[in-house]
Order: sequence, then C-alpha cells, then structure tokens
Amino acid sequence: MPKPSPPKRATVHDVAAAAGVSRGTVNRVLNGGYVSATARTAIEAAIAKVGYVPNTAARNLVRRRSQAIGFLAMEPHSLLLEDPNIGAIMLGANEVLSVADHQMVSLVVDSYRDTERVGRYLRGGFVDGAIIVSARAHDPITRLITQLRLPATFVGHPPDLHHSIPFVGIDNVGSARTITQRLLQTGRRRIGMIAAALDRDSGADRLTGFRQALGDRFDPSLVAEVPLYDYSNGVKGMRVLLDREPLLDGVFAASDAVAAGALEVLREAGRTVPGDVGIVGFDNSSWAMRTQPPLSTVHQPAREIGQNAAELVLNQVRGTEPAARSILLDTSVVWRDSA
Amino acid sequence: MPKPSPPKRATVHDVAAAAGVSRGTVNRVLNGGYVSATARTAIEAAIAKVGYVPNTAARNLVRRRSQAIGFLAMEPHSLLLEDPNIGAIMLGANEVLSVADHQMVSLVVDSYRDTERVGRYLRGGFVDGAIIVSARAHDPITRLITQLRLPATFVGHPPDLHHSIPFVGIDNVGSARTITQRLLQTGRRRIGMIAAALDRDSGADRLTGFRQALGDRFDPSLVAEVPLYDYSNGVKGMRVLLDREPLLDGVFAASDAVAAGALEVLREAGRTVPGDVGIVGFDNSSWAMRTQPPLSTVHQPAREIGQNAAELVLNQVRGTEPAARSILLDTSVVWRDSA
Repeated sequence: MPKPSPPKRATVHDVAAAAGVSRGTVNRVLNGGYVSATARTAIEAAIAKVGYVPNTAARNLVRRRSQAIGFLAMEPHSLLLEDPNIGAIMLGANEVLSVADHQMVSLVVDSYRDTERVGRYLRGGFVDGAIIVSARAHDPITRLITQLRLPATFVGHPPDLHHSIPFVGIDNVGSARTITQRLLQTGRRRIGMIAAALDRDSGADRLTGFRQALGDRFDPSLVAEVPLYDYSNGVKGMRVLLDREPLLDGVFAASDAVAAGALEVLREAGRTVPGDVGIVGFDNSSWAMRTQPPLSTVHQPAREIGQNAAELVLNQVRGTEPAARSILLDTSVVWRDSA
Repeated sequence: MPKPSPPKRATVHDVAAAAGVSRGTVNRVLNGGYVSATARTAIEAAIAKVGYVPNTAARNLVRRRSQAIGFLAMEPHSLLLEDPNIGAIMLGANEVLSVADHQMVSLVVDSYRDTERVGRYLRGGFVDGAIIVSARAHDPITRLITQLRLPATFVGHPPDLHHSIPFVGIDNVGSARTITQRLLQTGRRRIGMIAAALDRDSGADRLTGFRQALGDRFDPSLVAEVPLYDYSNGVKGMRVLLDREPLLDGVFAASDAVAAGALEVLREAGRTVPGDVGIVGFDNSSWAMRTQPPLSTVHQPAREIGQNAAELVLNQVRGTEPAARSILLDTSVVWRDSA
C-alpha cells in the first residue's frame, strides 16, 4: 500500500532556508522585484525542492480578482447525469475562458447544504463571475448573485427573469413550431406532444411552438405533461397519449431522450415508425442517432451556447461592454428516418 | 433587452458609509470582534444593501485553507461527455465533501493551455486537495500535485504509479474474469473480446481477466483492440471480430457503450443475441438497460467510488490518517438477456 506524505505545506521560511537566502529576498522574487541572477536561480530551485505554493491567492486578493469563473447547473442531479447538452455547454465555455486565461470551476448544487456553501463560496471572492444553467430568478443562488452584483450570464431564459443578468439561449418556440410543421407536411393528422419540464422556459416554449404550428387543430387532450426530459418520462408520456388516442399518427417529444422512451412504447404496442406514427425529438443528442429508426430532431448548438455565455461574463468582468446583450442562437432541423 | 449593472464591487468603505459607522467598526464585525448589537444590526443590513463580499478569501489565506477540493478528470473531452460513471463519481464525492463543509470545484483539462492554467490554480492555494480521475503518474498535473505534496486521491490505479498518492478503484481483473466465465458456462466456444483503452489500468486489467478466464482457450486473434470505451469503437471492434471469426459465438465488450455498438453490427449481420452470439458488457450504465436485448454486465459502484475518494482526501487534509490506504471496492455482475 502506498503511503502519502504528511500534509505539511512549505512556507517562505522553508524556501529561504533551502536557498540559503533571507526571507526578504524570497519575497522580492515572489513579488517580481529585483534580485541577482544567482539568488533567483537558487530560490527557484528551492521552491521546486520544498514544493512551496506561491502566493497567487494573495496577489489575486489584493487585485480583488480570482481569475476564476463559476459554472453552476441548477438541475436535479439525476437530470444532470443524463443531460445531453450540459457537457458540451461546459466545454464550450471552458474553451473561451481558457483562451482568456480564466479558470472555469464547476460547482455542483445538489442539496440545501450545497446551496448554502456555494453561496458562501461566491461571496468569498473565489470567482469573478458565474455562468448559471437552468436557473430561475427566485433560486437562492440567483438572488445572491444579483445582490452581489457578480458578473453573470444565464444559459436559458429564466421564466421569471425581470432583472439585469443577460442570457444565452435558443428560440425554443420557433424551433418547436418548425419541427411540428414537418409532421403536418408529411400528412399526420392526429398529432400529440409529450411536453416535459413545463416549469422551465425551454419546456413551456416548446409547447407554445407546438400549439402555434397546429393552430385550430390543436387538441389539449393530446398533450401529455411529464416533469423531466428523460427516457422514463418518454415511456410514461407515450402510454398516456396512446391511451387517450389510439389513432395517434404523429408525436412531438420534447427531447430526444423522451422520444427514445416513446419509441420503446410504440414498438411494444406494435406500431411501426415512421409507417404508423411519425415522431420527432429535440436536442440532436447521441440518442437521436442510436434509436431505431434514427430521430428527426432540432439541433441545439450547445458548444456555441457555452462559448457565448463565457464571452458575456468576461465582457462584464472586464467592464468592456456595460450593456451586455442577451443572445439567441439559431437552431437547425435534422431530418432522419423517424418522421 | 436587460441591462446588467456595472461590475463595481462594494468595499468596507461603502458598508461603513451605509451603516453610518467607522471602517474600524465594520472590520471588527467582519473579524468576529465585539460591537454593540445596534451597530452589528446596522452593519449587517448595510452589507446586504451594498452587496459587500466578506473577506472569506483573506481569512482562508491566513489559515492557508480554501475549504475547496479540486475534481479533475484527465479524459479526452469527447469521452468525458459520454462516460457513464464520471457524473456519479462526482456526485458521490460532492456528497461527502458537502457534509464536511468543503466546496468541490471541478476543473476541465481539455488542452495544453488548460494544463498550464490548472497547474497555476493548484499552486495558487485555491484548493486544499484534489481528486484525480483517470490520471497517469507522468501527467504534468499529477507530477505537480506530487511535488506540491497536495493531499490527493486517484480514482483508478494509474498504470505507472510508484508513489505516495492513494487510489480508489475496483478489481477490474476479477470482474472481467467472472463475466467471461459466464460466457463459458453458457456453452460459448469461440469467444472474442473488444478490448478498449489498453493504455489505462481499467482497459489493461479487463483484458487480463478475460485471458485468465479463457486459460488455454485464449486466442489472441480474437481480441480486437480499440482506443476508446465508446459506441463507435464498439462498431469498429465488432466488425474486426466478425471478419476474423465468422463463427464467433461469444463477446466480452470492455464497456456497455462498446457492447451497444457491437450489438448494432451483429443486428446488421443478421446474428441473433443471445441466440447466435452471447454478449456481455461492463459498467451497468444506462446503455445496459436500453439495448435490445438488455445487457448482462458488471456493476461499477461509481457513487461509492466518489464517496471513498473524497474521504481519502479529507483524511489527508485533516492529517487524521497519515498512512492513507488505497481502497478496492466490490463489483457485482448483473444478469440480463444478452448472455
């Protein structure tokens, strides 16, 4: 079994002793002041030897900057594990922050205890700004960020947003309308929707787009409401729809994972896709390519969403763009075999 | 369009002005010293009003503690997005750290630039310890952590580990042996393996277990080596195996995602599962339940891995267990329909 070293951390004193110089000389090197080349070389070797931690934290404290940006996803953790977009949003944000030499730190908010502690962390000056995914304006952390005037950007438009934090999102209404129209154009007449997460802007907006596309043909009894965008909710929602309307010939599932669950129920019920029923999803996630048949769906530019969110935060941190605009990114529809 | 506030941050001076007290009185409150109840109430109200950031960072600096633990996954980012375990490991670690009032901060390492900057972050005293997933001992960040004597734990056993950092893992050799034996016991005679990620302990150990189970029957030509544990590598590996041995009747896929890709190739080739070919996976991820047929596989206790990793780091941070032991957690085999 390996044995770890004891957790003692080296001090300036240890560096000075190892280099054979005074603490003042070490501090001059650490603060970028003048010392002889010989002393500098000895001190740098001593820093490496004793494993000294330079005082970046202290310097940042003086500058009131951490060079770090928090990334917070306000999702139930079960969803976080399944979300097809969150990873790509994080990597997109990290790309932009990395080029700007900022450290992205992802903070999990999974319990009340986390909320309290993340709040202290944000107040503690450990980050210069925050990117917040799936927030609502009444979330305690969102309220705190507003109160602190911490530079921040939302990913997605909080349904109850009435304040100063800009957001990056997609046009969920228009995208849902477009993909529902496809079901109409291919001759579907009894079209239902599995509507997930109606407490989020994305969920509510997708239902609005569905309703707009159907116009007079919209039948509220053909909307199955489910709480989450996942596979098992797709199973539940599809059972409800088939029960209410056995002649259903078209389905808009609010996400690809929901569509995958719905496909399983249609298969069990002996309905062919796209023969008997046409089905479309949303996200263009890995689900969409691996279902049988592959899904027609809406492509979310997740990486670009992350990049734009990072840029909006950095603009605020730098003060370069005081009136940061919110941004809506374009989606595209991907046609495969399911409708 | 909403307009953000300018990024001005409140100071002790602003608090003092808003409360109508001196800066010294504000500082006494911030440092936990005595002030009158009236002054304290006024100052707390003023802190809330002006959005002052208390000096947690300064206090932590004096204590040489950040109360934060870094979580680093050293995976190519494409894999990180698909990894079925990483999210559960993170949440398990966060549970333990949260109860211990430590902030978990996940750091993405996606490029050389990230490596440099994460290195500075670790040196800068922003974290008291680190959990490192899928590291190798020669990784620059692993070397740095060793040099800094930063409390740390590996998830998985770095193949080139010869030093002091403890690890949490599973017995990949024994688990792979057990699940391969199942293929033998159900009468399979020409058994191949899609062996992924042989540069990692997990990948190399799973191949060792496969070879041990087969003993004299092991045929190296029935091992298809692929770089990554994902669906598309399962597709590639299965094509290689079918090409080399059309009479193949058993497959051990190194992960469930690999098995899902292999199933697709078998389906296209007109082979029934488990009729013509028995196939087993590894992970018990969401893939395993959703393939047709569902997969027999090895359950990885991902959440417990994260919890144990957090405990090992905290033990080192507190100095309560100087000789931290590495930990191997038990797996279990889950039998479904694919073999």
